[in-house]
Amino acid sequence: MPPYSAAASHAAFLWNPMRPLVPVILSGGAGTRLWPLSREASPKPFLPLPDGGTLLGRTASRARSLPGAGAMVTVTNREYYFATKDVYAAAGGTPVPETYLLEPFGRNTAAAVALAALWTRERVGDDAPMLVLPADHLIRDEAAFARAVAAALPLAAEGMLVTFGIAPDRPETGYGYIECEAQPLRAGDAPGHRVARFVEKPQLAVAQQYVASGRHLWNSGMFCFTARAILDAFAQHAPAVLEGVRPAWQALAKREGGMLEIDAALFESVPDISIDYAVMEKAAGCAPGVAVVRGSFDWSDIGSWQAISDLVAADERGNRGQGERVAIDTRNTYIHAEDRVVAAVGVHDLVIVDTPDATLVAHRDQLQRVKEVVGELKARGHDAYKLHRTVARPWGAYTVLQEAPGFKIKRIEVKPGAALSLQMHHRRSEHWIVVSGTAEVTCGESVYNVGENESTYIPKHTKHRLANPGTAPLVMIEVQCGDYVGEDDIVRFDDRYGRVPEPAKA
Amino acid sequence: MPPYSAAASHAAFLWNPMRPLVPVILSGGAGTRLWPLSREASPKPFLPLPDGGTLLGRTASRARSLPGAGAMVTVTNREYYFATKDVYAAAGGTPVPETYLLEPFGRNTAAAVALAALWTRERVGDDAPMLVLPADHLIRDEAAFARAVAAALPLAAEGMLVTFGIAPDRPETGYGYIECEAQPLRAGDAPGHRVARFVEKPQLAVAQQYVASGRHLWNSGMFCFTARAILDAFAQHAPAVLEGVRPAWQALAKREGGMLEIDAALFESVPDISIDYAVMEKAAGCAPGVAVVRGSFDWSDIGSWQAISDLVAADERGNRGQGERVAIDTRNTYIHAEDRVVAAVGVHDLVIVDTPDATLVAHRDQLQRVKEVVGELKARGHDAYKLHRTVARPWGAYTVLQEAPGFKIKRIEVKPGAALSLQMHHRRSEHWIVVSGTAEVTCGESVYNVGENESTYIPKHTKHRLANPGTAPLVMIEVQCGDYVGEDDIVRFDDRYGRVPEPAKA
Repeated sequence: MPPYSAAASHAAFLWNPMRPLVPVILSGGAGTRLWPLSREASPKPFLPLPDGGTLLGRTASRARSLPGAGAMVTVTNREYYFATKDVYAAAGGTPVPETYLLEPFGRNTAAAVALAALWTRERVGDDAPMLVLPADHLIRDEAAFARAVAAALPLAAEGMLVTFGIAPDRPETGYGYIECEAQPLRAGDAPGHRVARFVEKPQLAVAQQYVASGRHLWNSGMFCFTARAILDAFAQHAPAVLEGVRPAWQALAKREGGMLEIDAALFESVPDISIDYAVMEKAAGCAPGVAVVRGSFDWSDIGSWQAISDLVAADERGNRGQGERVAIDTRNTYIHAEDRVVAAVGVHDLVIVDTPDATLVAHRDQLQRVKEVVGELKARGHDAYKLHRTVARPWGAYTVLQEAPGFKIKRIEVKPGAALSLQMHHRRSEHWIVVSGTAEVTCGESVYNVGENESTYIPKHTKHRLANPGTAPLVMIEVQCGDYVGEDDIVRFDDRYGRVPEPAKA
Repeated sequence: MPPYSAAASHAAFLWNPMRPLVPVILSGGAGTRLWPLSREASPKPFLPLPDGGTLLGRTASRARSLPGAGAMVTVTNREYYFATKDVYAAAGGTPVPETYLLEPFGRNTAAAVALAALWTRERVGDDAPMLVLPADHLIRDEAAFARAVAAALPLAAEGMLVTFGIAPDRPETGYGYIECEAQPLRAGDAPGHRVARFVEKPQLAVAQQYVASGRHLWNSGMFCFTARAILDAFAQHAPAVLEGVRPAWQALAKREGGMLEIDAALFESVPDISIDYAVMEKAAGCAPGVAVVRGSFDWSDIGSWQAISDLVAADERGNRGQGERVAIDTRNTYIHAEDRVVAAVGVHDLVIVDTPDATLVAHRDQLQRVKEVVGELKARGHDAYKLHRTVARPWGAYTVLQEAPGFKIKRIEVKPGAALSLQMHHRRSEHWIVVSGTAEVTCGESVYNVGENESTYIPKHTKHRLANPGTAPLVMIEVQCGDYVGEDDIVRFDDRYGRVPEPAKA
C-alpha cells in the first residue's frame, strides 16, 4: 500500500477540493447477540447477510459512493485489518484511498473519533467534513442516505455537529432518542433541526410518547462535522479524551502508509467513553450547537436475529431462512442452514441457526438473551464463542475438517499471490495435497511447485512455506500428524503480514 | 464363519437338548420417526441409545442370556448383515451359534417367522421352542423378561402360541391390545391366560376402557411357540404364506453356513402380512389356542423421540440430553448434540437432535410427524433420509469430511484383519495418508506397507486394495482428486464380502 503523503497522486486526490468528505468507519463490536453466526473473532460487521454482503462492506460501499467522498478512514481492531481489507475489496462503490487506524483494544467511540479527527486535520485539512459511520448498521436506501448527507454538509460547514435521526416506527426501548426543536434550522423544506437534548434508552411508556410526539428521533450513531468543529468540541467538553489520544496520534503522525497501528501502551490510558456521552450531549446546549438531519432511509442496527430474519421475505406461513430446510407444521420461524439440512416440526416463533460448529435454537421473544450463550461458552473455555470453524487469515482461510488425537485435517485456501509465513513445527509433520491451483512449496532448502492432484511432505523440525504463485485460488488439504497438533506449535521466521516478533525477523 | 451342519461341535451344540430354545430376532424397519439419528440404511435397531448400546444389541444380549437359549436366528435385510454381526460382537451375553436369514426386501413378519420356523424344524427339531423377538423394542429388566419366557415355555410345549402382554399404564392408541380371559390357564399364580381376541389400535375412549378393564394388555410383538405349532398354524390359517416361503426355504436348505441369502425372485411372491393378522388373530379362536403371558418387565417400542428422551434423567428444569449443550431459560427440552455445541434459549417442550449432516427441531407434541421430514427429503433426493455421514461397511466405516467439485476427503477406518475390495476408479486418483495403524496397500503389481505419518498415491485406472494387516484399527485420510468423485465410480475385482458380480470374480 503506497503511503499517502509520499505518493503524489494520492496526495493530490486527498487534497482534491472536489472530494473533501472523509468517511470515518467505526468497525468493531462483539455481536454476541448474533451468535453463532458472529463470533468474537468475526463480529457483527463481518456477518454475512441473508440478502448478500456484510454490514461492513455495505457501509464502505455506501460511504465511498457519496458525492465528494475522498479518503476513507477506518478505525478498527488490528485483528480485523486483513479481513476488513478483504471485505472492502469485495464491496462495491468507487475505490478511494484507505487509511486504517488500528486499535490494540477497544476504547469506545470517543477515542476513535478523536483519532480520526486528528488524522483528518493533519492529512486533509481543518475544514474537511468527516462523516462518522458505525459499520454494524444497515441502510438499504443509498439515495436517501446520500440526500441526508448532502443536507448535513452545509450545517457541518457552519461548525455544527450534525447527527442523523430516524423517525421511530415503534416504541423501541433499546435505542437512544434525539429530541429536536420544533422549528427547522432553515426556512422551507431543509431537513435540519437543532437538537434540544439526547435521551438514553427510555422506559416503554416514555418511548410510546416519543413515537407520538413527532419531535423524537432514534439516534442512528452517525455524525457529520468538520475536523475543526469536533476537535474544538472535544477540547471544550472532553479534554481528557483529546489529551489521552494525542500521544498515540503523535506516534502515528510520524509514520507513513495507510495502516497505522496505535501503540497499546499509549492507548491504554484513554478514557473508555462514547462520543455521545463525551461530546454530543454536552454540545447540544452550547453554540454552535448540535443539529439533527432526519433520515428518510430505512435503518437497522441489526441488533438481534429478529433483524436478520426481517431481511428476507416470509413464505405464506411466516417462515423465512436460507439453506436446505424442511418445515412441517411450522410457523413464523427463521432457519439459517449452512452445510446440513435443518428440519422443523410442529414449532413456531423460533430462530434456528445452524453453523458448522454450533447450533442455536431460540424463541423470538428471547433473542436478547442469546448473548448469555456466548458468556457461558466463554466461561467453559469452548472455542465456539470466539472462532468459526473456518478461520480467516491475511493469506486466505483455513477450515478444520477433523481433529482427533494424533492428527488434524485442514482445508487451506491461499489467495492468488499470497503466502503463509516461513515457519516450522516441533511436534507435527504435514502432508499437503493440492486439490486446486498450484502451490509453491519451500521445504528446507528446496523450493518447488506442487500442482493439482500432487502432494508433498513436510517433516517436523523443517522450515517451510506455502505460497500461491498463480492467479487462481490455491486449495490444499493438509493432514497433520503428531503427538500434538495445536495451533500454537508454530515458529514463524518470516511473515509478510508482520506476524513475526521483531528479533526473529533478522 | 463355519457352516453349522458341517462343524461337528456346532451341530452338537445346536442339538443340545439342554439348550433347545431358538431365539428368532426380527430386525429391520425404517425408524423414520427417529430421524435424523436413524436412517433408511441405519434403522431403529442400530440407533445408539443415550444410555448405551443399541436396541438390536440389547435384544441379542437379552436373548442369548436366557437359560436354554441355543442357536439364534436373525431374520434381517441383507444390507444389514455385516452391521448386525458387528453389533452382536459388541453386545453382551453368552455367545451362541448365529444364523442369518437375509431377506432381499421386507415381507413383514409372517414370512420371516415362517422361514425361521422351517429352519428350526430342519436344523433343531419340530418340538424346539422358538422365541420371536423384534429387535426394535427396549426391555431393561432382563430378569423379569427371563421369568416371562420361563412361564411361556410350558404353554408352548403344549402346542399353544404364546404372546407376551404388557399391562398398559396409559391409554395408548398407537398399540394393538390383547384381551385375555378372566380365568388363568392354570390354578395358582401361573401367569398364563387364554387370549380371547386381539384388538388393533383403538380409539382413545376405547383405550381408556382397556386400561381400566385389567383384561387388556399391550401386544408386545414377542411370541413363543414350537416350530411344529406355528407351522401347523400357518398351514391352517395362512397357507399362502407357508407355500410362498417354501421354495425360498428349499433353495436355502441346500446351503451350508450361517449366512443364508434368500433368493429375491423366490421371495417376491410371498404375501406381505404380519404374523398377527396372518395367524395369531385367527388362531385365538381355535384349539390349542393362543395364550398370553403378562410381562412384569418394562417395555418400550421406542416409537418416537419422546421414548428416547425418557431414557435419560432430567435436570431440575426438565431438560435432558447428551453432548455439549447450553440451555438458557429452557424447560422440558431434549437435546442430542453430537460433534458441535447446541444452545437453546427461551424454549420449552422441544426435541433438538443435531447430527453431522442433519438437524431436527421438533415440538414434543408433534414427534409422530418427524417421519414426514424423511418423506420430504426422499422426495427431494436428499441423501440425509438414507445415509449418515459416517457409513458402515463390512470392513469398517468411512466418513465424508468434505466434498467439493474436483475433490472429496474421507476418513477411512479399517478393522484389524479386514480389507476393502480390490478395485479401480476411472475418474479419480487417491492420496492416502495413514494417521493411525498400518496399511497394507496393493497398487498395481506392488504390495507394500504404509505406516503412521506415511502416505501413498493411487493413480486412476490402477487396481488397488487397502487392508489392515495389524491388530489395531487403521485410520487413513483419503483425498480423492478427479473430475468426478461419486461413490459409483468403482470397479470391484475381488471382494471378501461378496460385493462382486459373479463373472468378475473369476
